Amino acid sequence: MVYVVAVYDVEADRTRLFLNFLRRYLTHVQNSVFEGEITEGDLEEIKQELESMLEPGESVIVYRMSAEQYVSRTVYGEDPTEDDQFL
Amino acid sequence: MVYVVAVYDVEADRTRLFLNFLRRYLTHVQNSVFEGEITEGDLEEIKQELESMLEPGESVIVYRMSAEQYVSRTVYGEDPTEDDQFL
Repeated sequence: MVYVVAVYDVEADRTRLFLNFLRRYLTHVQNSVFEGEITEGDLEEIKQELESMLEPGESVIVYRMSAEQYVSRTVYGEDPTEDDQFL
Repeated sequence: MVYVVAVYDVEADRTRLFLNFLRRYLTHVQNSVFEGEITEGDLEEIKQELESMLEPGESVIVYRMSAEQYVSRTVYGEDPTEDDQFL
């Protein structure tokens, strides 16, 4: 398993597409930010799908950590963690 | 030193404020994403400043890693890394 944080920067009218796709694998923690522990296989699947979804000028950054224990997350301001608001 | 990734989610007309503030400490790597290796003192300074800047409904997530070696970053789509475009 690997722990990943993914952040997308895509056209406004395409955010739902990426939101729905990434939520199949990860937890939605902020506007354009997702995180979670997944298998190498799922990460590979995400990569391949993203490559086919992205259009010019858009990008998704994926930070990959060997384990969740190597990272700590602190939220300043209102914690936006709620995975169901956008359903 | 600690390695941090920070992502802001703020009102559109206040993005420049956060952009300018975070770039004093970190590298701007995507729309609302910043990263870099900083001192514990700088991280503390960032935290305090953010608390005073953030308004209701806004947030900044800070991921903190003990060292850059624990994380790898992959960009899918167009690599938006350019720290000067928004100057």
